Amino acid sequence: MTSKIKNLGEIGLIERLTKRIKLDKSVVLGAGDDAAVIRWTRDRYLLYTCDMIIEDVHFRLKDAAPFQIGRKALAVNISDIAAMGGVPRYAVISIGINPATPVSFVDRLYRGIEALAKRFKINIVGGDTNSSRKLVIDISLLGEVEKENLVTRSGAKRGDLILITGAIGGSIKGRHLNFMPRLAESRRLVKNFKINSMIDVSDGLILDLGRILKASSCGAVIYEMAVPLSKDASSFASAIKNGEDFELLFTMGQKEAARFFKTELARFGTDVSMIGEVVEKRNGIKLVDGTGRIRNIKAKGYTHFD
Amino acid sequence: MTSKIKNLGEIGLIERLTKRIKLDKSVVLGAGDDAAVIRWTRDRYLLYTCDMIIEDVHFRLKDAAPFQIGRKALAVNISDIAAMGGVPRYAVISIGINPATPVSFVDRLYRGIEALAKRFKINIVGGDTNSSRKLVIDISLLGEVEKENLVTRSGAKRGDLILITGAIGGSIKGRHLNFMPRLAESRRLVKNFKINSMIDVSDGLILDLGRILKASSCGAVIYEMAVPLSKDASSFASAIKNGEDFELLFTMGQKEAARFFKTELARFGTDVSMIGEVVEKRNGIKLVDGTGRIRNIKAKGYTHFD
Repeated sequence: MTSKIKNLGEIGLIERLTKRIKLDKSVVLGAGDDAAVIRWTRDRYLLYTCDMIIEDVHFRLKDAAPFQIGRKALAVNISDIAAMGGVPRYAVISIGINPATPVSFVDRLYRGIEALAKRFKINIVGGDTNSSRKLVIDISLLGEVEKENLVTRSGAKRGDLILITGAIGGSIKGRHLNFMPRLAESRRLVKNFKINSMIDVSDGLILDLGRILKASSCGAVIYEMAVPLSKDASSFASAIKNGEDFELLFTMGQKEAARFFKTELARFGTDVSMIGEVVEKRNGIKLVDGTGRIRNIKAKGYTHFD
Repeated sequence: MTSKIKNLGEIGLIERLTKRIKLDKSVVLGAGDDAAVIRWTRDRYLLYTCDMIIEDVHFRLKDAAPFQIGRKALAVNISDIAAMGGVPRYAVISIGINPATPVSFVDRLYRGIEALAKRFKINIVGGDTNSSRKLVIDISLLGEVEKENLVTRSGAKRGDLILITGAIGGSIKGRHLNFMPRLAESRRLVKNFKINSMIDVSDGLILDLGRILKASSCGAVIYEMAVPLSKDASSFASAIKNGEDFELLFTMGQKEAARFFKTELARFGTDVSMIGEVVEKRNGIKLVDGTGRIRNIKAKGYTHFD
C-alpha cells in the first residue's frame, strides 16, 4: 500500500522537510513554534512566519465576505507573532485568484487586509498575484521582539499555571472570520510578567496544549469546569478540539499568576482564565471533570491531514 | 459591464493593494521591485520577497517531476534576491497539497527544495501545510545585501549599456524547471562593478526591460542581432515576450561595461551580452533589426491577467 500524506499528519509533513536542512547559528529557533526566531539587532530578534488560507478549506465564498477573507489571512499571521510575544512589522502577500473575479471583490478583500495592517502598523512591502481556479492567499509576516520578551512553546515548567484568554469553541459560527488577534494582550503580558510558554490556539485547545507540553517535556491537568466556553460552543468535548479560536494559551509560575490576577486582570480588557496546571510529563494530559473524575485525553484537534 | 481582474492586469492588481497602505521609515523600498528593502544593520539591508507557483498554471504534474517543482519554487525566489544584488538567507514555505498525494511525491518535492537550499546556504525556518485540490507552493525568502551593493530597477541612466546573462527564449521546453538562479553572477557583478539597475527576466525580456525603464524614467534601443537566443527559442519575436528565462538584465555605464568585458567576462563563467542602450524616455523602446530598420515595441510579455 502506498503511503499517503493523509496518513502522515500535518506535523510529520512539515518536519519531513525542515529536519533535514541544517540551520546556521543566526537562527535562534527554526520551524516548530508559532514563528521562527532569527538574530537581528543587539537587543531584538526577528520573527518570521507564514500562513496560507485556501477557498473551500479555510473559508467558503458563500459564507465569507471578501473583506473577512482578506482580514483573516492577515489576522492568523498576526496571531502567530503575538504568540511569540512580538509585534508584527512587514508582510508580503501572495494571491492566487480567478481572472474572472470582479475587481470589486479584490478591492474588498484588500480592504480587509488593509484594515488590520493599519490597526497594527504593518508595512505591506510586496506581493505576487497569480491566476488560480480557487482563491488562495498566503501571507508571510515579519515581526520583532525584544530579546527579554520572547516567549516560545518550550518554556513551560512543572507547577506553572495554564491560562487562556477569551473563550473557546464554536469559532466556525463566525468568530474565525472576525476575531481580533490578541496582540495587545500578548504585549501587556510579556512586558509586565514572566510568561514561561505561549501558543495561539489555532488547531484546538488540547492539540495546541499538547504542542506546549511536547516542546517543554511536561504533562498537564486541565479542569473542565474552568475552561471558558464561547456562547457558540456546542459542547465542552467539541470546544476543546475545534480549531481557529486564536486565543492565547500560556503558562506562568504560580506567584506570577497570582500577581497577574491581583494587579492586572481588572484593567486587562480581555478575560483570562486559569484552566489547569503543568505537571510531570509521565502524566500526559489529564482532564478533571465537575465531579472530580479524572481521565486521560489525547492531544487531538484540527489538522489538515489527520 | 462588471470590471474583471483579467482586464486590470497583474501590476494593477498588486498596486491596488500596496499603494494605499503607508510605509514607515524603516522601509527603504516597498512593493514594485524584485524584493522589498528594509533597514537591517548599520551596513546591510534586509531583502524580502515571495513567489507562488500553482499546479496547471506554472507547471503540470504530467510534465514536471516533483523534484523539479520543489526546486523551481525556491529558485524563482532566489532569482529575485539575486536581482537586487543580495544573498538569500531564510525561507518559510507554505504548501497546499492533496491529502491523497503519496508521501514519496512530497519527499521528492522536498528534495528539490533542499537541493537549492543547501547549495545557496538558505535556512528553511518554517512552513505551513494545508489540504488543497491543486498543488500550490508559496515560498517567502529573506535575503541581505550590503548597502553599497543594493541594485534596484530605478537606477538606469541615459547612456547606460543594457546587458543580459545567458540566452533567452523557449524556456517552456524545460529550462524553466531546471534553471540555476544567477546568484553567483549577480554577486560578482555588484561586488566588482557599478551596476546601475537590474531585474530578473521572469515575464519576458521586453516586459521586464519596460519595468526598468518605467522605474528609471528612461527609454531604450535594443539591437535585435545582439539579443542572445537560446537553442530552444522558436523565434526572436517569441523569445523576447515569453517568460521564465530567469536571466539577469542589467545596465551599467559605458566605461564600466568596457571594464567588465575587458577584465571579467573571460573568467565570468556565464555569457553576458550587450543588447542595447538606455536612451531618453520619450523614445520608448525601439528595436533595431539586422537591416538597420527601427521600430517601436510595446513592453509586453507574460502576465497572469492580461
